[in-house]
Amino acid sequence: MRVAIITIGDEILYGQTIDTNSAWIGEQCSLLGLEMVEIASVGDDTNAIQIALKRLLERCDMIFITGGLGPTNDDLTKLTLAKYFKTGFKTDYQVLSDVEERFRNRGISMLDSNRMQAEIPEIAEAIRNPKGTAPGLWFELNGKVVVSMPGVPYEMKFMMANEVFPRIKQKFKLPLIMHKYLHTAGVGESVIAEKLKEIEKELPDDLKLAYLPGLGTVKLRLTARGFEKVGLEQKIKLFSMKIKDKLHKHLSGEDDDTIDSVIHRLFVGKNLTLSTAESCTGGLISSYLIRLPGASAFFKGGFVAYDNFLKNKLLSVSEEVLEHFGAVSEEVVCEMAKSARDLTNSDYSIAVSGIAGPDGGTTEKPVGTVWLAIAGSEEIFTKKLNLPGDRRQNIRLTAIIALNELRKFVTAQLDK
Amino acid sequence: MRVAIITIGDEILYGQTIDTNSAWIGEQCSLLGLEMVEIASVGDDTNAIQIALKRLLERCDMIFITGGLGPTNDDLTKLTLAKYFKTGFKTDYQVLSDVEERFRNRGISMLDSNRMQAEIPEIAEAIRNPKGTAPGLWFELNGKVVVSMPGVPYEMKFMMANEVFPRIKQKFKLPLIMHKYLHTAGVGESVIAEKLKEIEKELPDDLKLAYLPGLGTVKLRLTARGFEKVGLEQKIKLFSMKIKDKLHKHLSGEDDDTIDSVIHRLFVGKNLTLSTAESCTGGLISSYLIRLPGASAFFKGGFVAYDNFLKNKLLSVSEEVLEHFGAVSEEVVCEMAKSARDLTNSDYSIAVSGIAGPDGGTTEKPVGTVWLAIAGSEEIFTKKLNLPGDRRQNIRLTAIIALNELRKFVTAQLDK
Repeated sequence: MRVAIITIGDEILYGQTIDTNSAWIGEQCSLLGLEMVEIASVGDDTNAIQIALKRLLERCDMIFITGGLGPTNDDLTKLTLAKYFKTGFKTDYQVLSDVEERFRNRGISMLDSNRMQAEIPEIAEAIRNPKGTAPGLWFELNGKVVVSMPGVPYEMKFMMANEVFPRIKQKFKLPLIMHKYLHTAGVGESVIAEKLKEIEKELPDDLKLAYLPGLGTVKLRLTARGFEKVGLEQKIKLFSMKIKDKLHKHLSGEDDDTIDSVIHRLFVGKNLTLSTAESCTGGLISSYLIRLPGASAFFKGGFVAYDNFLKNKLLSVSEEVLEHFGAVSEEVVCEMAKSARDLTNSDYSIAVSGIAGPDGGTTEKPVGTVWLAIAGSEEIFTKKLNLPGDRRQNIRLTAIIALNELRKFVTAQLDK
Repeated sequence: MRVAIITIGDEILYGQTIDTNSAWIGEQCSLLGLEMVEIASVGDDTNAIQIALKRLLERCDMIFITGGLGPTNDDLTKLTLAKYFKTGFKTDYQVLSDVEERFRNRGISMLDSNRMQAEIPEIAEAIRNPKGTAPGLWFELNGKVVVSMPGVPYEMKFMMANEVFPRIKQKFKLPLIMHKYLHTAGVGESVIAEKLKEIEKELPDDLKLAYLPGLGTVKLRLTARGFEKVGLEQKIKLFSMKIKDKLHKHLSGEDDDTIDSVIHRLFVGKNLTLSTAESCTGGLISSYLIRLPGASAFFKGGFVAYDNFLKNKLLSVSEEVLEHFGAVSEEVVCEMAKSARDLTNSDYSIAVSGIAGPDGGTTEKPVGTVWLAIAGSEEIFTKKLNLPGDRRQNIRLTAIIALNELRKFVTAQLDK
């Protein structure tokens, strides 16, 4: 089952909007066993949309279109699809009543442009949109399916998950695609590839290994494809175990894990609590820690001591230490970590202080210099980082590395 | 000058990597006056790469390729390009010495796969990569240009900005494209479109208006295209003033502004200081405030009082108030805001407390209920939000709305 995505909108070509929709649809399709052949982004241009549609319909069984369904004049998708499929328009009264109800509930008066959203191409079926005013459209012609969705991510996702994918599963017999992800942190792609050279040679034809480098991390993806579920599962299991064996200490998680979900699970599982004292990351570490529901079970809170005055006032770092060693120093992050731990009554704390850039660097402490400390009940672990990136990368990298070091530190203590 | 982007990698089709490279290249191209015709993402598949290349080279003058240049076996771009252009390989000794130096500096021993990165197609020119080991490739054939770049964003961006775009500017005479962005917050796309209906009708042919809806915001983009700089500038200026007049109170910024950059400029300009006291956003607001260099000129720091115990201990919210009104209440955020302001000696503070979801909601306070308070020296502004999204959206939306309300509150106070 070959599928493709067409995303529509000048804002994507001009780079004002990052196309996160395609990534989400691609992921869902791979979980369904649909083979994604191409993602094409074209502008708000009837002709370009038609060309892309024609070309991809020749090669694929199904096309997902996002964008260009809004109520404004630059939204051309619906008209273009009607033109492409040589069909007129009809009023969908279900959609009309949905839109009317939406406006009534919000106490806003309805505009003509909103009323027009219930006009859909005659051969299409409407897909109701409980999160917005633009319905989706489902076209079926000569055994091929074209689905047109609004570009607003949470509207699109809701409609795809609740309407479109269930219909597709009902309609087609799909092959199996299975993925297994193994995450590594703190080591480069080519080192990992070298370690896995022998394993790669042994990979059977229906198993594929990919390297997905990220900021401070490399994700490995094993993909199996076929029709025989048990066999595929066994192969994936066997090879992921071989890889885990080889990479042992570099492994930071699996599958949907992120470094914050690993911390979350580790701390909740062991009934441990955590706090933070952040300078250069300005609260980013704590914002990572609360991303998952239930974070209050382990994360107490913390301090953003961006100003040195607050390092002293809130976290009792003495003025002499600040003066003598500087805010970016092992001494200061140790004090910050201990104070955060004690003030919040938590088992562990993380503290960071660094020079994110672009200014503020010196010869001795250039931009990218970061000190981090992790305080347990007795031991304190410290580390100096020399980060290579720009301000934004340095801040994110500091947060990721700090959490990864916390993982290693706590795991090592528990293993004792 | 028509250009297109091809991004290569199964990880993009499968949605494990969000293609931010294309957005960045698209933006840069639009600033250069290059017309972006299409962005195509294909898998790690020689055949698919060649088909996309052939098709887009027929319609475009220039193709930017990203991805698939790494040292691992799933990286096929270089081989595919050599095959497509029917050319052999040569060793680029400059690249070889760059790679050798890189490994020497880091004290890591070099692998064969790294040495291979200096082997490039005979008809290509290498583009040196000071941030990594894979060089870029510049092909020129029959007046058309194909540029192949590594997929790691900061490597690609550095090489494009410092090598590729300067070469392109030197080589081609480019038309002008100008953009003007106006940002709105807190009001929907169709309301804005209704307000601008008359202005849209007056737009001349070489001016285009687009609506770019985001989380809690709608960005407007005016685009002018032509060869006559002064005339285009005047038209953009005239119409952006008309739009600003119409939208006045909804405008939150212009061009590269983000809500945090607007706050940054406002506070630094007026010599004001700010602090935060966050519960449900877990430090996200403060992490937004330090995104730009120089944030220490206005942002002192703050508290992440995720646990109620810390709302009491760090921010002196009395146990009775917490008990009686609940953590998500006007009374609690007022206390949080006042304490944060006083403890940090800042002019203003923001406090938020809410139920981000998916759990923790009640009939009285459903998921999405958020209280926010902004404390000035005397007045306190409070607002209750009812957010519609999932956990992640609710957290981000709270941060954006809080900063937008801060902007309005401070601006109104200064206007008095």
